[in-house]
Amino acid sequence: MTERDAIRRIARKAQASNPRLIAGIGDDCAIWRSAAGEDLVFTTDFLLEGVHFTRPLYSAPDIGHKALARGLSDIAAMGASPQFCLLSLALAPNCDQRWMDSFYAGLLKLAKKFDTTLAGGDLSHADRVLCDIVVCGSVPRGKALRRDGARLGDLIFVSGPLGRDWREYRRPVPRIEFGLSIRAIATSCIDITDGLSLDLHRLCEASGVGAEVDCVPVRKGATLEQALGAGEDYELLWTMPDGAAAPKGSIRIGRITRDDGIFLQGQPLEARGYDHLQQ
Amino acid sequence: MTERDAIRRIARKAQASNPRLIAGIGDDCAIWRSAAGEDLVFTTDFLLEGVHFTRPLYSAPDIGHKALARGLSDIAAMGASPQFCLLSLALAPNCDQRWMDSFYAGLLKLAKKFDTTLAGGDLSHADRVLCDIVVCGSVPRGKALRRDGARLGDLIFVSGPLGRDWREYRRPVPRIEFGLSIRAIATSCIDITDGLSLDLHRLCEASGVGAEVDCVPVRKGATLEQALGAGEDYELLWTMPDGAAAPKGSIRIGRITRDDGIFLQGQPLEARGYDHLQQ
Repeated sequence: MTERDAIRRIARKAQASNPRLIAGIGDDCAIWRSAAGEDLVFTTDFLLEGVHFTRPLYSAPDIGHKALARGLSDIAAMGASPQFCLLSLALAPNCDQRWMDSFYAGLLKLAKKFDTTLAGGDLSHADRVLCDIVVCGSVPRGKALRRDGARLGDLIFVSGPLGRDWREYRRPVPRIEFGLSIRAIATSCIDITDGLSLDLHRLCEASGVGAEVDCVPVRKGATLEQALGAGEDYELLWTMPDGAAAPKGSIRIGRITRDDGIFLQGQPLEARGYDHLQQ
Repeated sequence: MTERDAIRRIARKAQASNPRLIAGIGDDCAIWRSAAGEDLVFTTDFLLEGVHFTRPLYSAPDIGHKALARGLSDIAAMGASPQFCLLSLALAPNCDQRWMDSFYAGLLKLAKKFDTTLAGGDLSHADRVLCDIVVCGSVPRGKALRRDGARLGDLIFVSGPLGRDWREYRRPVPRIEFGLSIRAIATSCIDITDGLSLDLHRLCEASGVGAEVDCVPVRKGATLEQALGAGEDYELLWTMPDGAAAPKGSIRIGRITRDDGIFLQGQPLEARGYDHLQQ
């Protein structure tokens, strides 16, 4: 398989049909037509063999799925609609054409579910499989959900019970619809992919506030420890004014307080979660 | 160094000041304000230790520079103005804070030269240094230079003599101004980062044409072989109608012909260049 053949195969499978994508796979750049009145949001996320997954615990389509899911989860956290993605992929020596086809099948299945066009990327080789996804989403001007909007007295919610083990959670489903459903009412939002305690700390720090957490919804089979610090939950954590109607599936976990710390049932809640530079 | 500290340091150094960048480093996504009447172009490029560079042959600022230069070269090939970039970086075990600071110094110096705002990215760890750059450029609607516009009778040009050795070429300067200067007259364009012969084949294939190359401008100290196939030239290869005025520095190398092959002085010119899947 040459690079040219591989790119042709990928382009055929991607079959871009978004009228705003003027040029997709096959040129130096993808070309996207701007529209006034919208903001575009961009995220980029690594998915690296040996760091974020191992083989054969993860199959090729699992890896393709998860590479995109990581980016889509950030798009969900902004309350945005996904538009297109670019994928940088380095193949390991034992990844043949069949492996590559399966990888893209996994990625494109999820892309189709959320109307995300594969618009381009880069192809390389390495001693391990390396993925880096870029996702672009759109949102009406000024309406993106940010981390820094939580205000004193706001209630804090999560979109589902927490405590996922990344080894078991091969095909996470990003909460795109959920993000869209809270866009008009949320004051701040973040996705929980590094653990509730760490991501709550990040949200509070960005907003310059504190928090009092009353209860943590723990997934069946998980421990409180896992719910607080395991990460990989792909749920949303958000705040909204007291009295607003939360969408179905919302779980209230606490309230935003003055900037004097983050507490769980009266005890200081440390930021425990995955830190890439502390491994 | 924790991830949080590292992100703060990077954000402080990046000092985003682009009024269209509504939110930069520090949220789930960067937020970019769209404008009607423009097209945005996007590219993503790996720069991987052991594949694209080695240490200590490349210093930290060399690597930061080159990571961005690869993306900017694609933006130049579209005739676009760079706007912002996102950088995914995995640090190796022996990369300390000083290394990271030097890396970003190299990247941000080049970014400043070409008004490119560092808007976000991802930070991770791996056994080797891994970079993946995303660059966004803008161009008036419908004016992006593509590979597929070369027409029978067009003249073929390059932006400078060819034959670079990647081991020696640590700080390539992308031809942004050159790309802008040919945007109104070129019918097609590609950057030569995989070797003239391979990139000319790509341009001709996309355009459905052939080519007759009369002469290849070889850099002082390089061989014809290197000029044709070594890659890493960071020059532009473009076509334009016979009779149009080429900008200063342009070197005419041949003419577009019917789709019956690519020839150098009457001999078939094979596509020799770097193929990531054939290593």
